[in-house]
Formats: sequence, C-alpha cells, structure tokens
Amino acid sequence: MSGLLYGLGVGPGDPELITLKALRILRQAPVVAYPALEKGKSFARGIVACWLSPAQLEIPIRIPMEAARFPAQAVYDRAAAEIASQLEAGRDVAVICQGDPFFYGSFMYLFGRLAERFATAIVPGVSSLTACAAAACFPLAAREDVLVILPATLPEEVLECRLKEVDAAAIIKLGRNFAKVRDLLDRLGMGANSRYVEHATLGSERVLKLAQVSDDEPPYFSMILYHRRGEAWR
Amino acid sequence: MSGLLYGLGVGPGDPELITLKALRILRQAPVVAYPALEKGKSFARGIVACWLSPAQLEIPIRIPMEAARFPAQAVYDRAAAEIASQLEAGRDVAVICQGDPFFYGSFMYLFGRLAERFATAIVPGVSSLTACAAAACFPLAAREDVLVILPATLPEEVLECRLKEVDAAAIIKLGRNFAKVRDLLDRLGMGANSRYVEHATLGSERVLKLAQVSDDEPPYFSMILYHRRGEAWR
Repeated sequence: MSGLLYGLGVGPGDPELITLKALRILRQAPVVAYPALEKGKSFARGIVACWLSPAQLEIPIRIPMEAARFPAQAVYDRAAAEIASQLEAGRDVAVICQGDPFFYGSFMYLFGRLAERFATAIVPGVSSLTACAAAACFPLAAREDVLVILPATLPEEVLECRLKEVDAAAIIKLGRNFAKVRDLLDRLGMGANSRYVEHATLGSERVLKLAQVSDDEPPYFSMILYHRRGEAWR
Repeated sequence: MSGLLYGLGVGPGDPELITLKALRILRQAPVVAYPALEKGKSFARGIVACWLSPAQLEIPIRIPMEAARFPAQAVYDRAAAEIASQLEAGRDVAVICQGDPFFYGSFMYLFGRLAERFATAIVPGVSSLTACAAAACFPLAAREDVLVILPATLPEEVLECRLKEVDAAAIIKLGRNFAKVRDLLDRLGMGANSRYVEHATLGSERVLKLAQVSDDEPPYFSMILYHRRGEAWR
C-alpha cells in the first residue's frame, strides 16, 4: 500500500505558530520534503527544525535562485519523482509548507503532479494573511466587507481595477513591485489606510505606514494591508 | 498596571488545529471570554474546553439568537465593560476566537471598544478559509491569482460584479443565501469549478459539488470555494 502525501502548513515563521495537528504528523512522518535555496537554507525547514529527528529522511527541493519567482518545472518534476518513489515504498511523506499549503504556496507544484496518483491530505496552517494582520494589529475584514488578495506582480491597471470600491485588500509578493503599489494606493487615496508588514511573526518583523518605507525593494515576503476603515475600529 | 487583552485564534473547530502559541496563552490566562448562544453552548469554548481549568474566570458573551447575524451592540458594550474591569484589575484576558480574530470574527466588536484603552495582542489562527480548502482538497490560489472573499449576504448584483473575471473566490456566510449564490455561480458558468464545504475539520464535515447540495438553507458557517481551474491542478 502506498504512503500518504501530506501538505503540512506550519505557519508563517514563528515556530510557536504550528498547530498541534501539523506537529503530530510532522513527528510521525518517516520522510519530510521542503523547498530550499539552491545553495543554502530552507526557511520552511527552519520553522520546524527543533522537531525533526535524524531518523527522518529529508528531501530538500532546491529551487534555482534565478527561477525563484517562476520555479523551474524540471526541479518539481524531479522532486515529485523522488517523493513518488517514497510513497510507492509505503512511506508517508510530509511536505513542509510555510504558511498554508493552498494559499499561494509552492506546494501546488507537487500537488499538481502527485495528488492524482497518491492519497493526499492537507493540514491547514496559519497563513501570512492572518499573521500580517495580527502583527500590525490591523483587522482584515468584518461583517459584509469584500476582501481581495492581489499579487503585486500583476500589471498596475489590473491592480487599480481590482482595488476600486473594495472594502479591504491584501497585496502580497511585494519585492521589486513595492513602489508601484505604494504609488497606486496613494493615487487612489488608500495609502493612509494601509499598513506595510514584513517578516511577520519573526524577530525581524516590521510594521510601517507606507510613507515610512524607505526601501524601494523590500523583501518578497512582505505585504500591504488596506482597509477602508483604517484604524477606525478603535 | 493593566492586564493584556488577547484576541486568541483557536482555529476552525478541530481542537488539534490550535497553535502552540494560542494554547500557551490560553492556559496562562486568568480570565477567558468567548461568544456563546443566549441559552446554551459556546462553539469557541468547545474547541478548547479540554485545556481550561476551574481556576480560570470565564466570561461568556451571550449573543441573543435573533440578533446573531447583526449582534446587539448593547451585548458587546456590557461584555467590553466586564472585560475592561478585569484588565484594570491587572488580569490578562484571552478572548477565544473561532478561526482567526481578524478574519470576519466577532472579536472586532470588542477590539473596537477596548484596543484604544488597553494593550492588545492578536494571536493569528487557522481561518475557515484555509480550513475549507484543506477539507475539500481544493487549492485556494497560486502565482498571480486574484482571490476574493465575499459574504453571501451581499446583494446579488454586487456578488455578480465582484465575481467577474476573478481567478478564485470564497463565498462565506451562506445560510439562507445559499440558493442565490448557487444559482448565480451556475448562471456565470462557475458552478462546475466550485465546491461547497460545511463544518470543515469537524466530524460533521461535508464537501459537495454545488448540484449535490439538496438543502436550500445550509449552516451559516459553510462556504463555497471557486477556482477557475477547478480540479485541473491534478
């Protein structure tokens, strides 16, 4: 009998934001896989490092730097084949996913290749969305609010169209697109009711008003939250 | 010195989907508050019941049934006053929030009344959004997808406008609005790529295609997920 493939959400970065369920499955899994830099560390592995045991087989999925934003399909083909051979041997494989596996995660590339052939279970995790809102003490949405999630990599005119008449928005994957998004929000009169959050839940966490962000290329894993009420909840 | 107000996300319902952090703070809190039915149980309390101790003071916030969808402001005024008196006495108060405190939660009503006066910390939780996607094994969003969260209580024409040309959507708070949303999605040709989820992560969890939902008034805490790819990830 084949092993079970787990998409294991381990939360946004603070090791304490893992769920009891993810922790139980992680510790029981004979094989763990995770995305990693081509030469160097894995952020996802780092979140759960203290729970791993030397008895577990580790499969790092090494994403080439230059392809980090549009991952090379060949890397995922190879990783899927390696994971498949473990599953075929009857071993469960837990894929460690930063945040939540189904919320803009790279797990999708493995899911698309493996979920048809192998039994798959997803353990939801605390996503970057709720982590950033908590870090900024900035409510996401309530009652009849419409909330839209927008990758900053979209063209400016698409972002503008999507932001019109919205109650709340989270603009993710900022990186080199930060200045474009900040200027757009300012032009739409939404800047004052927005917050910038980077490295939410980590020691390096920063929460700033947009005008305070001096850097034009903040980390890729940063986010802008907007709500029409701004801080008027208080 | 005043106590600290915690908005404590305890996840969507499965007690195992609480985070280590929420569990630690919950067990340390001298006072816990939670929403409850006027006469009867509290779903939020039920999630963490096995971790509570008789030494903790409990403040149930009893929401009148007829006001469940538009909570009576007076109830929250009273609850905020009761919590404030505990905070003023120097005791930390943990408000137990199903899912995540800032994702369409009733915690907002307390946050709006107390966060100005008292130091407040939010512990993010696994939201119903990622829990439903995991339950249905139905990815939410990836890469440059636009994802929109829509309360089903909005007028049909607003929903239609918001759903146009969207990659992915979650329509929450279905209840008596289910038939309206199902018919709209079918009319827009989105029904086949949608899934209905109720009671995600609980023993009573159900995942259905829209056409399989026989009930015209499913639970208020149910959700429809749409993605233009449907199951084409596999």
